Amino acid sequence: MISKKMQNYVNNSSAIRAMFEEGKRLSALYGAENVYDFSLGNPNVPAPAAVKESIIDILNKEDSLELHGYMSNSGYEDVRRAIAQSLNERFGTAFHEGNLVMTVGAAGGLNVILKTLLNPGDEVIVFAPFFGEYRSYTDNYDGVLVVISPDIRTFQPNLEEFAKKITPKTKAVIVNTPNNPTGVVYSEETIRQMAAIMEEKQKEFGTDIYLISDEPYRELAYDGVEVPYLTRYYRNTIVGYSYSKSLSLPGERIGYLVLPDELSGAAEIQAGANVATRILGFVNAPSLMQKVVARCLKEETDLSYYNRNREELYNGLKELGFSCIKPQGAFYLFVKSPVEDEGAFCAKAKEENILLVPGSSFACPGYVRIAYCVAYETIVRAMPGFRRLARSYGLGGQHESN
Amino acid sequence: MISKKMQNYVNNSSAIRAMFEEGKRLSALYGAENVYDFSLGNPNVPAPAAVKESIIDILNKEDSLELHGYMSNSGYEDVRRAIAQSLNERFGTAFHEGNLVMTVGAAGGLNVILKTLLNPGDEVIVFAPFFGEYRSYTDNYDGVLVVISPDIRTFQPNLEEFAKKITPKTKAVIVNTPNNPTGVVYSEETIRQMAAIMEEKQKEFGTDIYLISDEPYRELAYDGVEVPYLTRYYRNTIVGYSYSKSLSLPGERIGYLVLPDELSGAAEIQAGANVATRILGFVNAPSLMQKVVARCLKEETDLSYYNRNREELYNGLKELGFSCIKPQGAFYLFVKSPVEDEGAFCAKAKEENILLVPGSSFACPGYVRIAYCVAYETIVRAMPGFRRLARSYGLGGQHESN
Repeated sequence: MISKKMQNYVNNSSAIRAMFEEGKRLSALYGAENVYDFSLGNPNVPAPAAVKESIIDILNKEDSLELHGYMSNSGYEDVRRAIAQSLNERFGTAFHEGNLVMTVGAAGGLNVILKTLLNPGDEVIVFAPFFGEYRSYTDNYDGVLVVISPDIRTFQPNLEEFAKKITPKTKAVIVNTPNNPTGVVYSEETIRQMAAIMEEKQKEFGTDIYLISDEPYRELAYDGVEVPYLTRYYRNTIVGYSYSKSLSLPGERIGYLVLPDELSGAAEIQAGANVATRILGFVNAPSLMQKVVARCLKEETDLSYYNRNREELYNGLKELGFSCIKPQGAFYLFVKSPVEDEGAFCAKAKEENILLVPGSSFACPGYVRIAYCVAYETIVRAMPGFRRLARSYGLGGQHESN
Repeated sequence: MISKKMQNYVNNSSAIRAMFEEGKRLSALYGAENVYDFSLGNPNVPAPAAVKESIIDILNKEDSLELHGYMSNSGYEDVRRAIAQSLNERFGTAFHEGNLVMTVGAAGGLNVILKTLLNPGDEVIVFAPFFGEYRSYTDNYDGVLVVISPDIRTFQPNLEEFAKKITPKTKAVIVNTPNNPTGVVYSEETIRQMAAIMEEKQKEFGTDIYLISDEPYRELAYDGVEVPYLTRYYRNTIVGYSYSKSLSLPGERIGYLVLPDELSGAAEIQAGANVATRILGFVNAPSLMQKVVARCLKEETDLSYYNRNREELYNGLKELGFSCIKPQGAFYLFVKSPVEDEGAFCAKAKEENILLVPGSSFACPGYVRIAYCVAYETIVRAMPGFRRLARSYGLGGQHESN
């Protein structure tokens, strides 16, 4: 009845979403406080108070027809102008409203830009481990996903393999920094090297290779680490942003694309993204939320909340003998599974009501993702379970007596 | 730079949207009060007061994390349950929350269901005149659009041609009643005949043919006319609904799909629509607005406002000698162009600052669409321009002296 492609998707549906649904089932069974759901990147810090205040103020001041009505498919001009200006102040760029397309979150934005760019058979490069949805988004437009294998020492992109896998069919490269699922921030040095490789390959093949920077986690960086703004390093850079994490609005579906004038074929790409927004059925990003984010450009999420979780979980798991690199951003920990088959480890963790996502979902088997955007108490209360897991695998047992 | 498909789209972009942008340009030039923009189906009746009240009440009562957070891709269960119950009360159906998928408007819903159903090459039948976006939506999933030519006497679907054009590759049939662009409501008799034809063809070919009812205008019916609820007439019916017109929220992008348990392969289709919502990048319908519409199920738009416009415009144009059928629903008038090339007529109307959309955009050349979801005064003030147009084409001149 349904299409062949969709049959595959339904049969191999998102492990993250499956765990999320499983979490709801277990919560109903055992009580939410006894289920440790680390499966979904659903922020646990409430939206800043300014979000609610802005909504009410907008409702009181603005005309209903303007507020809830259609606007240009790319979004309200004043909203786009405000965001452009804010980016310019923060990153020394020179964007204007014509460089912005408001989108239904970053997921909507990625679909819009891939629809705009890809001919069937065009290649899209991603670096493992990567957010599994990139595979679906690329497949939506009959693109071919090319996966660069992970560098499990640093989880920085494997640039040697990258240079080898760029071909004349490479149309886009997706990066995600701070990274889901590792929390790693790509260093400026990494970015410079990537840019140099792409410049060289563009010349060699006479093609354009677009770097798509998926940035839902831009504002979530710890220890004062800088997250380079990629349009400053490589001319053909497109940025996809989301307010899902920075303002804790994932359900509201609000974000934007930056399409700089410096892009090869900028005017065509900007016009294409406008049309793609319409014909994919988004039509426009939700109108009220466009106006809300424009008023909340200086708002920040409570990073200290996530940081406390990060320290607690990272230190706790290290102490138990688990191994993982310390994340500099986002709200994920990417932990080495004590056994090769991380699916078996996830199943065993579920017996402790601890819900993890297998690394295979991110093209990096042997690891699990722990989303620590949860209540601090969830981490504390989950620790005995993690301890039992560690023991059952014989981790860290050498210096503990029982 | 952009894909070949998108190049075509950009070059042949929506005439409706182009007129909308042109309207903004002319308004800046001549003042909004001197531009008669009949191009876009952008409601002119403000959202009911209950929308604002609901938003504020929800913000005051609900937890920010729940309110703005992720939920199941199909939407909040309580919202879906409330809508199902409301449909059951109104139409004697027996839906439950599992039959509903909340969508980013009807446009989002149509994309979700076509992504779910279509294999490349599958045929989708539409009846001219039809909303031009159906062509893009079908093309998004490599479906083949099959157009049934219009019956310009009644603008009811041409069922004789319909029966002939159904093939073993026919996967879906899209209907839109009340209709954009004609305002015609398909009669119960029409629906019964369509259903009988599809039943017969399903048997003949051993296939399933899904009837997709695109219903953004369901609540906009005049003179007490009944709009049949199609799941009651044909088993394989899928409904796509939007609150854009009924609650005047087009910018907010909120609607739903109804996927009845009676569908062939219902469970697969429901699971597929859930996955398609995710992978197309919608992820879920905007969360706050889901909760708002669930509280506004008994709200109605001010139909008398549109009805007054309908009478004024219909009677005014008839008097001037224009010819069109009287619409029973929606907020469009589909008027016969005084000259065969309706594009030339639209251009001439633009000289009067009157913005119309050519019928070719709806696969029905020789006609123009007038969206009367405008201020009443716009219609009154546009009439002298329409009069000059009528005279310039020699319409209605026989019984007037100058």
